[in-house]
Amino acid sequence: MRFSKFFLLACAAFAGVCGTALADDSTLAPRQVPAKTVPVPTDVSPEMQKLIAAPLNPAWNVLWKTGEEWRAAANVRAAQVDKTIPAMLERLHVTMHAETMNGVRVFVLTPDDIPPEHRDKVLIHVHGGCYELYPGESGTTEGIIMAGLGHYKVISVDYRMPPEAYFPAALDDVLTVYKDVLKTTDSKNVAVFGTSAGGALVLETMLRAKQEGLRLPGAIAPGTPMSDVTKTGDSFYTNEKVDNVLVSPNGFCHAATVVYAHGHDLKDPLLSPVYGDMHDFPPTILTTGTRDLLLSNTVRVHRKLREAGVEAQLEVFEGLSHAQYQVDDRIPETKEAFGEITEFFDKHLGH
Amino acid sequence: MRFSKFFLLACAAFAGVCGTALADDSTLAPRQVPAKTVPVPTDVSPEMQKLIAAPLNPAWNVLWKTGEEWRAAANVRAAQVDKTIPAMLERLHVTMHAETMNGVRVFVLTPDDIPPEHRDKVLIHVHGGCYELYPGESGTTEGIIMAGLGHYKVISVDYRMPPEAYFPAALDDVLTVYKDVLKTTDSKNVAVFGTSAGGALVLETMLRAKQEGLRLPGAIAPGTPMSDVTKTGDSFYTNEKVDNVLVSPNGFCHAATVVYAHGHDLKDPLLSPVYGDMHDFPPTILTTGTRDLLLSNTVRVHRKLREAGVEAQLEVFEGLSHAQYQVDDRIPETKEAFGEITEFFDKHLGH
Repeated sequence: MRFSKFFLLACAAFAGVCGTALADDSTLAPRQVPAKTVPVPTDVSPEMQKLIAAPLNPAWNVLWKTGEEWRAAANVRAAQVDKTIPAMLERLHVTMHAETMNGVRVFVLTPDDIPPEHRDKVLIHVHGGCYELYPGESGTTEGIIMAGLGHYKVISVDYRMPPEAYFPAALDDVLTVYKDVLKTTDSKNVAVFGTSAGGALVLETMLRAKQEGLRLPGAIAPGTPMSDVTKTGDSFYTNEKVDNVLVSPNGFCHAATVVYAHGHDLKDPLLSPVYGDMHDFPPTILTTGTRDLLLSNTVRVHRKLREAGVEAQLEVFEGLSHAQYQVDDRIPETKEAFGEITEFFDKHLGH
Repeated sequence: MRFSKFFLLACAAFAGVCGTALADDSTLAPRQVPAKTVPVPTDVSPEMQKLIAAPLNPAWNVLWKTGEEWRAAANVRAAQVDKTIPAMLERLHVTMHAETMNGVRVFVLTPDDIPPEHRDKVLIHVHGGCYELYPGESGTTEGIIMAGLGHYKVISVDYRMPPEAYFPAALDDVLTVYKDVLKTTDSKNVAVFGTSAGGALVLETMLRAKQEGLRLPGAIAPGTPMSDVTKTGDSFYTNEKVDNVLVSPNGFCHAATVVYAHGHDLKDPLLSPVYGDMHDFPPTILTTGTRDLLLSNTVRVHRKLREAGVEAQLEVFEGLSHAQYQVDDRIPETKEAFGEITEFFDKHLGH
């Protein structure tokens, strides 16, 4: 009895040389995971504990079907965020001004202190929000964090969103800004970064830049990218209702993306860039968290880049749900995440 | 109604500049995660799908309390594994012979083909098994994979385990072998690697080597290290009953570790190396999977190394439970994982 029990244990732990515990070809049965209580981790900062302990996003299953509905809600939210931006700019010693680049709306974010070695360099920021949220100034917060903590000039793209325009308008706008920046700045002195839909747009921009034969930037930082919007990716399921931001693969973010896609095939690499060809991509740093619904879709991009021979660095933060490393510049983990991105850009830009 | 719903959504998604969805200081409530069905991921190799689809280790809650019980079971399991080794050696073109180094039992694993640039280099392998399992030849399988796929000479340490000896005997034995290797090989030409308890022992060996003022190796590869045996680490809970190998923080592996610790404080960095000082550690590559019970305890080591200014590379494989990247040399993900480790050693050894 004791040994047969151990035999089972050992087989499961070492199935490759044992086999009896392996699933049969014909029965790749799903895992039934019982209900459980997951404590707030003690090995993160007190500030991050509060974010982690927040209840599930109570409106995770808002499933609007039109660009007009999304925009109305996005405007309400944007007005709230906009109010917080002056204090944020002051705290991080960054100034902001709006302009257009070849017709595309942008915000230029300039830190008070730009060290000499950063003065010929430009970062392009692509905000997140499921291709529907954070229009205007409200989309600049991550850009302000990067400018303030990293001491780089940042151009944050206020790309068109529904109902103003649909796929591939957001991508077109980011590419337009990138091309405009290349007129005055060597591509090796440019980095492109962003989180969530912004992370996906960073990757999509590289795919399009390759198609168009453009020089690629010196580095990119796609954070927890929406790299696969077909609901493929194991953490969509393992972290369902563990991630308190996105909560579920069947929630608001998928619904918003479907509205942006406007009938286009969701598996197109320009919507699900994990299916694109990543050879010759620039050095890439990726950031996610262990509770992130998009943990899998971050690590899949990392593996795909590595398989393509690209220098790619993966950062996974303990206990964090989707994009929580960039919600508050005052949290230690935020400083750490943007410290890593800064170090990566410092290393790779300019050569 | 619509806007208040969206307000909640936006707050949760952007709590840092909103605040209303944040947990109160006094109530860091745990997350109640409902029961769910997690499908086998489609974005891994068919061979890996079979490992992922295997049912939970049916003996995960074996909780023996003595070294004698563990060893009796380990011997039964070892006899099974030993039978598979000749075919594995043949398949990977590796020869094995047993010897002792300053009294410590080792297996020397020599690939038929060692390229010129590897001939002055040595890898030290530290096997896993919760400090209790895989005595003798049965502990060499990961070493054989590394020797065969990486084309390096590997010395696999058959360290003492209960009831032969208890903490810190395993660590003493690895350190003895390391010191013995240093007599003939420059430390910069040595790497130390291993998985699970082996990964922890790699880290513990670095802490001890620093204490003793030894030169450190050129690189290390602790795979999914048991870096915290105090049940701290968020994925102990988020991946409970998702990981089909270890299954639970309250399962066999913790019980086995307690027997090895033999009353010693589990938070001692020589048992929970995440609490050690990692400054001046050599370049480190870490490997884990998204379903790994020790995902958190791998990424925590990664972050701690990065905070200490150490070059550290993290690899996270889609859908894999604990240590599944090293159970079968014929699986594509295994080749990829050891390909990464080989590339890392190639880059860092020798200088």
